Amino acid sequence: MPPTSGPFAVLPEPPYYVVTFASERTDGDNGYGAMAEAMVDLARRQPGFLGVESARGADGFGITNSFWQSEEHIRAWKRVVDHLTAQQRGRRDWYRHYAVRIGVIQRAYDFSQESP
Amino acid sequence: MPPTSGPFAVLPEPPYYVVTFASERTDGDNGYGAMAEAMVDLARRQPGFLGVESARGADGFGITNSFWQSEEHIRAWKRVVDHLTAQQRGRRDWYRHYAVRIGVIQRAYDFSQESP
Repeated sequence: MPPTSGPFAVLPEPPYYVVTFASERTDGDNGYGAMAEAMVDLARRQPGFLGVESARGADGFGITNSFWQSEEHIRAWKRVVDHLTAQQRGRRDWYRHYAVRIGVIQRAYDFSQESP
Repeated sequence: MPPTSGPFAVLPEPPYYVVTFASERTDGDNGYGAMAEAMVDLARRQPGFLGVESARGADGFGITNSFWQSEEHIRAWKRVVDHLTAQQRGRRDWYRHYAVRIGVIQRAYDFSQESP
């Protein structure tokens, strides 16, 4: 598991894979908060996991980008999520709508005010 | 895909390109709100622009994913942004830290409670 830098994922040089999960929450918690936290903890322990970044506004719309070593690692993670959400509360209880896009990151750069 | 998207981008079938922009805001507005809105309006009018999704939490951490037809369209958009931010307040006034990752989305799926 890579070191974390506040809300930012610390990632290797590209290429690596991304899952962007955009979602609009339903009203009420319905066990979402606890499950979301457990999901992130579980993702961090998955093979091929590189990092995750997440933001949700007061309007209930959120984006989570998770980063992975390969598409096979992403497929394995999806099987874990599908299994868990079939056992417990489903994503369909938590989200009005969600959109998932999967791809490969080819280049990256960043900026920090703390940089020398 | 729903006809009216709200905060969701309505995108064509993959492949298409993505810019994920993760950022942590500085304190205070410093002209950020007006500029961010103008930027999105301008992006929407750029050649090759497909859509944008954005979320920022109360902690100041936000993610904006914008989607484009090609890498060349992304490079052209970056030139516009660099030009604007050089003329006006720079990104360096608005962000403590940001990370940009550019790649290609290869597959996508979504779910809606309103789906038949």
